[in-house]
Amino acid sequence: MERPTNKFKIINDPVYGFIKIRFEIIYHLIEHPYFQRLRRIRQLGMTHFVYPGANHTRFQHALGAMHLMAEAIASIRSKGHEVTEVEEEAVTIAILLHDIGHGPFSHTLEKTLISGIRHEDISLVMMEIMNEEFNGKLSLAISIFRDEYKKRFLHQLVSGQLDVDRMDYLRRDSFFTGVTEGSIGTDRIIKMLEVHDDLLVVEEKGIYSIEKFLVARRLMYWQVYLHKGVIAADQLLIMMLRRAKDLAAQGEKLFATPALDYFLYQRGGKMSESNRTEFMEHFSGLDDNDIISAAKVWSRYEDPVLRFLCSGFVNRKLFRIEIGREPFSQERLLQEVERAAIACNIQHKMAEYLVVSDSISNHAYSNIDDDIKILSRDRKVKEITEVSEILNVSVLSRQLSKFFLCYPKKNEDPQ
Amino acid sequence: MERPTNKFKIINDPVYGFIKIRFEIIYHLIEHPYFQRLRRIRQLGMTHFVYPGANHTRFQHALGAMHLMAEAIASIRSKGHEVTEVEEEAVTIAILLHDIGHGPFSHTLEKTLISGIRHEDISLVMMEIMNEEFNGKLSLAISIFRDEYKKRFLHQLVSGQLDVDRMDYLRRDSFFTGVTEGSIGTDRIIKMLEVHDDLLVVEEKGIYSIEKFLVARRLMYWQVYLHKGVIAADQLLIMMLRRAKDLAAQGEKLFATPALDYFLYQRGGKMSESNRTEFMEHFSGLDDNDIISAAKVWSRYEDPVLRFLCSGFVNRKLFRIEIGREPFSQERLLQEVERAAIACNIQHKMAEYLVVSDSISNHAYSNIDDDIKILSRDRKVKEITEVSEILNVSVLSRQLSKFFLCYPKKNEDPQ
Amino acid sequence: MERPTNKFKIINDPVYGFIKIRFEIIYHLIEHPYFQRLRRIRQLGMTHFVYPGANHTRFQHALGAMHLMAEAIASIRSKGHEVTEVEEEAVTIAILLHDIGHGPFSHTLEKTLISGIRHEDISLVMMEIMNEEFNGKLSLAISIFRDEYKKRFLHQLVSGQLDVDRMDYLRRDSFFTGVTEGSIGTDRIIKMLEVHDDLLVVEEKGIYSIEKFLVARRLMYWQVYLHKGVIAADQLLIMMLRRAKDLAAQGEKLFATPALDYFLYQRGGKMSESNRTEFMEHFSGLDDNDIISAAKVWSRYEDPVLRFLCSGFVNRKLFRIEIGREPFSQERLLQEVERAAIACNIQHKMAEYLVVSDSISNHAYSNIDDDIKILSRDRKVKEITEVSEILNVSVLSRQLSKFFLCYPKKNEDPQ
Amino acid sequence: MERPTNKFKIINDPVYGFIKIRFEIIYHLIEHPYFQRLRRIRQLGMTHFVYPGANHTRFQHALGAMHLMAEAIASIRSKGHEVTEVEEEAVTIAILLHDIGHGPFSHTLEKTLISGIRHEDISLVMMEIMNEEFNGKLSLAISIFRDEYKKRFLHQLVSGQLDVDRMDYLRRDSFFTGVTEGSIGTDRIIKMLEVHDDLLVVEEKGIYSIEKFLVARRLMYWQVYLHKGVIAADQLLIMMLRRAKDLAAQGEKLFATPALDYFLYQRGGKMSESNRTEFMEHFSGLDDNDIISAAKVWSRYEDPVLRFLCSGFVNRKLFRIEIGREPFSQERLLQEVERAAIACNIQHKMAEYLVVSDSISNHAYSNIDDDIKILSRDRKVKEITEVSEILNVSVLSRQLSKFFLCYPKKNEDPQ
Repeated sequence: MERPTNKFKIINDPVYGFIKIRFEIIYHLIEHPYFQRLRRIRQLGMTHFVYPGANHTRFQHALGAMHLMAEAIASIRSKGHEVTEVEEEAVTIAILLHDIGHGPFSHTLEKTLISGIRHEDISLVMMEIMNEEFNGKLSLAISIFRDEYKKRFLHQLVSGQLDVDRMDYLRRDSFFTGVTEGSIGTDRIIKMLEVHDDLLVVEEKGIYSIEKFLVARRLMYWQVYLHKGVIAADQLLIMMLRRAKDLAAQGEKLFATPALDYFLYQRGGKMSESNRTEFMEHFSGLDDNDIISAAKVWSRYEDPVLRFLCSGFVNRKLFRIEIGREPFSQERLLQEVERAAIACNIQHKMAEYLVVSDSISNHAYSNIDDDIKILSRDRKVKEITEVSEILNVSVLSRQLSKFFLCYPKKNEDPQ
Repeated sequence: MERPTNKFKIINDPVYGFIKIRFEIIYHLIEHPYFQRLRRIRQLGMTHFVYPGANHTRFQHALGAMHLMAEAIASIRSKGHEVTEVEEEAVTIAILLHDIGHGPFSHTLEKTLISGIRHEDISLVMMEIMNEEFNGKLSLAISIFRDEYKKRFLHQLVSGQLDVDRMDYLRRDSFFTGVTEGSIGTDRIIKMLEVHDDLLVVEEKGIYSIEKFLVARRLMYWQVYLHKGVIAADQLLIMMLRRAKDLAAQGEKLFATPALDYFLYQRGGKMSESNRTEFMEHFSGLDDNDIISAAKVWSRYEDPVLRFLCSGFVNRKLFRIEIGREPFSQERLLQEVERAAIACNIQHKMAEYLVVSDSISNHAYSNIDDDIKILSRDRKVKEITEVSEILNVSVLSRQLSKFFLCYPKKNEDPQ
Repeated sequence: MERPTNKFKIINDPVYGFIKIRFEIIYHLIEHPYFQRLRRIRQLGMTHFVYPGANHTRFQHALGAMHLMAEAIASIRSKGHEVTEVEEEAVTIAILLHDIGHGPFSHTLEKTLISGIRHEDISLVMMEIMNEEFNGKLSLAISIFRDEYKKRFLHQLVSGQLDVDRMDYLRRDSFFTGVTEGSIGTDRIIKMLEVHDDLLVVEEKGIYSIEKFLVARRLMYWQVYLHKGVIAADQLLIMMLRRAKDLAAQGEKLFATPALDYFLYQRGGKMSESNRTEFMEHFSGLDDNDIISAAKVWSRYEDPVLRFLCSGFVNRKLFRIEIGREPFSQERLLQEVERAAIACNIQHKMAEYLVVSDSISNHAYSNIDDDIKILSRDRKVKEITEVSEILNVSVLSRQLSKFFLCYPKKNEDPQ
Repeated sequence: MERPTNKFKIINDPVYGFIKIRFEIIYHLIEHPYFQRLRRIRQLGMTHFVYPGANHTRFQHALGAMHLMAEAIASIRSKGHEVTEVEEEAVTIAILLHDIGHGPFSHTLEKTLISGIRHEDISLVMMEIMNEEFNGKLSLAISIFRDEYKKRFLHQLVSGQLDVDRMDYLRRDSFFTGVTEGSIGTDRIIKMLEVHDDLLVVEEKGIYSIEKFLVARRLMYWQVYLHKGVIAADQLLIMMLRRAKDLAAQGEKLFATPALDYFLYQRGGKMSESNRTEFMEHFSGLDDNDIISAAKVWSRYEDPVLRFLCSGFVNRKLFRIEIGREPFSQERLLQEVERAAIACNIQHKMAEYLVVSDSISNHAYSNIDDDIKILSRDRKVKEITEVSEILNVSVLSRQLSKFFLCYPKKNEDPQ
């Protein structure tokens, strides 16, 4: 009797129990250095400063999303819709690699070290490079990822209002932060998925689950993703990298791993056609460890601004942060800069690295591009905004902005 | 060294782990036959017809609510508000006994066997009887229960928009039905409780938890408490008890336990001053077992209507049920009665027991009597309806009615 | 496009989430009155006196075991062993109905009201009756149940050292009692199942899981199944039914539902060929409700012994119980009988109903009939007793007896 | 009314829900750079190569152990034993800092970069440094940690057969790896703790929980801590650091962060009285990031051996590993070295870095120094080895050794 090859492995996952690898190519994609690199990138960046459990990685998330994809495909098939083996393999590849282009502290990096390219585009570049290595076996996956495939619901499962990406990260982030209220019932939502005119819809009786999904998402936004402490940590990191880049531009020689060195010193971290190969080589070598290692060294550097910022980043001495519904006034900003300059005995210009005024926004549910569609019992498609009696979806979809002001805590001012 | 007496016991609970009994009187109250009787009354009546796990009892719920009360008192104390030992004991008694007056299939019973008194009033009568037995030691608890005590937040913890009764039953019903999405984060809500002017309020940063609590509650209403199958089972039971009572009124001798016999044959199940003792003696002897035992016997009784209804109740042959936003027309009703009469070869008048048209409503959050109050960071109290950006609380508080029509399934008509 | 018929339902279960019904016949078997009756029989009898959460029913357990069977079959197939659709349906029927013959408080009943037949035999009789109703479609299931089918591992999955019956009840009883330590990792054990020479074996690397399974089982025995309070409650029930039966034999007319009346008054509850139909008709009408309803009425009966026992059963006034490694002496027994007789002002002979001396035993793991087999990496089969380094399996398999003595608590003596 | 200062914070933890900080000094200790550094050290080193969820840090574990300590103290007090506020604060400090001296990949580091000092000793040195900074407020904690305080059970709670360190890491590692079978019932074990003659004992009825604890621990050893893949990863890291150190000794200049550079190039990583300050300064700057950053750079270094090892470490190309009950023969070892040398076209001497033969051992329960003591109902103290009927404790306590041989997989040989 034939035993199945050991390529078809099962992976332990604290959230779902066991995750099965159903296709041989998935096994090889997981082994690829691009994918292994996701082990070294935390899903939630500095969030562990506020929720110490949040050390889970993009590697875990990608596997988790793949697990939910298998369940979603099974649910859709059980309702009589065809998804071929080839299509299932492709959509599994697409979800596995959907975040492959994330760098360390991704959103922060895009505001500092890297410019001219977003992580979604890097994902696509990486998928194309991998497609070449795998002799074109990723082509259908890429087509689904780009929403160029006829069965559009496959793309929507990868990227849409009810994609398995979102379902996994909400559930996973809730699990690891310990904010259990953010947990969503993925089982029931997936059981309610339907396909209508090649698009993803939800059975009418699933409406309460969708409402709960939207409210849980909102809770996760304000309680985790946009938590005051998390924003304060992000701003610290942003200013630290800006200061480092400015010092580099002035010719100062800062300690850095080769990959980080490239983005500090080369062409402003810009990717173009001409440097694509070089860029990707260095980008794929960059992860959380490069940033943290550098910060530790820089926390002893002579520049007081960089030293202050890095020391805060390493030892979790965060900015004080104020949140408001209105932008903070220019006066207030200047006042804090002034205070910081005096307290730290540095120039006014230098103190500007220590004070940040900006805004954050959350639109937990945006109906602009892609609404959640409900399939009524009489097979008519409606938008959740029409159907939900309870949710003020117009508010949910409106972009809520909050303004913040960050500055050094008094007793932690730099000397 | 003295060991504490073994009166102070710990009870295993699948929801919370361990529940501690903190006061000696609680131990004796639990031993009282009135309270032991709650072991024999399911919290959710016939809901196990739809969710087979829902066999938990009012006994378990009362202990669970007591557990949350201890946590709520600890949370309130930790914020600097005084709750004396005496007050804690009293509010613990009040929550333990808050549902003591429930009968089997409580809401159904109040529409059929029992009249002139609601379970809340029976609770109070029972507490007063117990207070005599316990030499007045329940007086403060009763005062809190009746909202006559100055620290009104203690009453609100027993009975209010955010009482521990509701928190426990939502979490417990979610746990035992397996509808995990209905689960609420009791830990965080309790942590957010505050007292302002002797009233219960919620810290502003708890608003997302409250929103989620309200949405989870709504989900539990539509997915569990008002599930189609549950309503159909309730209507079956109501009509069965009505038919039995009518037959009893006509002098037919039906099998019944003595306690059930009393309510079938004596004075229409009405309580008055004169029969209070007798009424309570029989009421306290009634539980799920009496109803189910009788139904099993009646399912072989000669009257075809009673036989049909009881057989459905015993073997889970539920009514077919239709739900609509408008009341069902008189024509439709008559048509179903006619159909049932012919199918069962019974008189039209008899067939009326087999067809029910009525409405159900849910106001998950009613702001009429008692709103959830939010305490802002600047110590101002606002209503959740004002503060929540996302919830359409005006809809939540509006009473949503749905209409239903129940009638026999075709192939299960009585012969 | 065809929608699957709604016969293929999904059932919510708090332990596993969703349980799927995979075969149409299963749907009809669940609807059968014999199976619906399991809703009214608690899995653990009076255990809820000690663990208030333990109100789960044999109905839930049968569905849960069916769920694990589906997983076990999938695991075995994934290792290359053939299980046909027909075989899967049959083994699913077999596990669904494996406990169909249980009566209320099963083990107690077999010592009192019923004699001459064990629940296993009643299960078989019921299956055969159902097989006739289902036109022989249960024949293969019955063959597997009786261990007459060639693929013996199918029988072993229904009834053996590692059957899914045991796996479900251990996990489920642990869940509902709240004794979380008794929980077993069914996922991993099932993943480790293999078939060798048509017999069930466990992969060698699963040995730690098996060890843990055995230890968890042992823990459940002493902490739940043979808990002092549970034994005391069982003895109360046994003596109550014995006293009732003796009074019935003396011609006294006791309240009883028709089903209970049959076993109290007819031919000593004995089943024979001649009364099989009649016996089964009454047996299938008996459940927890009949016993509890009668006990409530009897608790006011004139006979002081019956009254005392029933009142204890209803209001949870349990016997005092002592456990020892040696049998209790005849002197001690007489002494307690004497004390009870005086305290209750009853005859010595009557007091014998209030004092019980007996033994309980547990052999958590018996290697007599059916050992757990381990399949080593080199495809050799060994017994767990040989392979486990840590477990003293000779002790585990030895029958451990403990002796107990039950008698009335002092302040609850009958008057 | 006074509000408590916000110093007394609550921390979210996925394992326990909320962890309270009960003493002000704890807040400041957590803020100390020595403690913040534990955020950057994974509890289980490279175990996430096998169990991707295992990214939890020593920071989380220290907080979790502190949480269990609070519960243990409450349990012991509830049984009438005095633990003063001062003692509770001290034992809380002791458990918080018990692992403060761990470096990255701790056990590996002690075999390579660092010599002459174990992490337990470094913990003590760090505590003493912190004690100076905190003006002697840690003195009692240190005394308890060193087992010099009269109430020896306090030390045993920090370090002993049933310490909260072990309880937390077993439960936490089980949680994050997803190996749920390793989970232990900390609640019940803690509830069973007693003190007798100032020593920690367990109530007799807790024996089943202890048995289960020991078996779960054993399961975690073989399934997680000594998993083949984990050992293979450890060996890769060990050889990588050895090779780097050897190259450094030969004068080659390797990329390294300043902290890592110190241990690579200075005095063989040896601590002595004379370099204590310098040693600690660098040691406290070292964490997972330094090792991983270096490995990434070294994976492109010219030395083929270092390059091979680092590339494996970065991209998870682990050694092939064989496990046996007997030591592997010298012939076999040479044969693998030979094969590696040829395959990699390197000298025999170089190939020795690629082949490792060693042994691992687990004594899950050692009765040599500190046995688990059971307090019988008649207040006699016995050893678990005497009392447990089921566990072959003599085997559990015997040191089980397994031998392993690691060598490169065929298709990943260095070129």
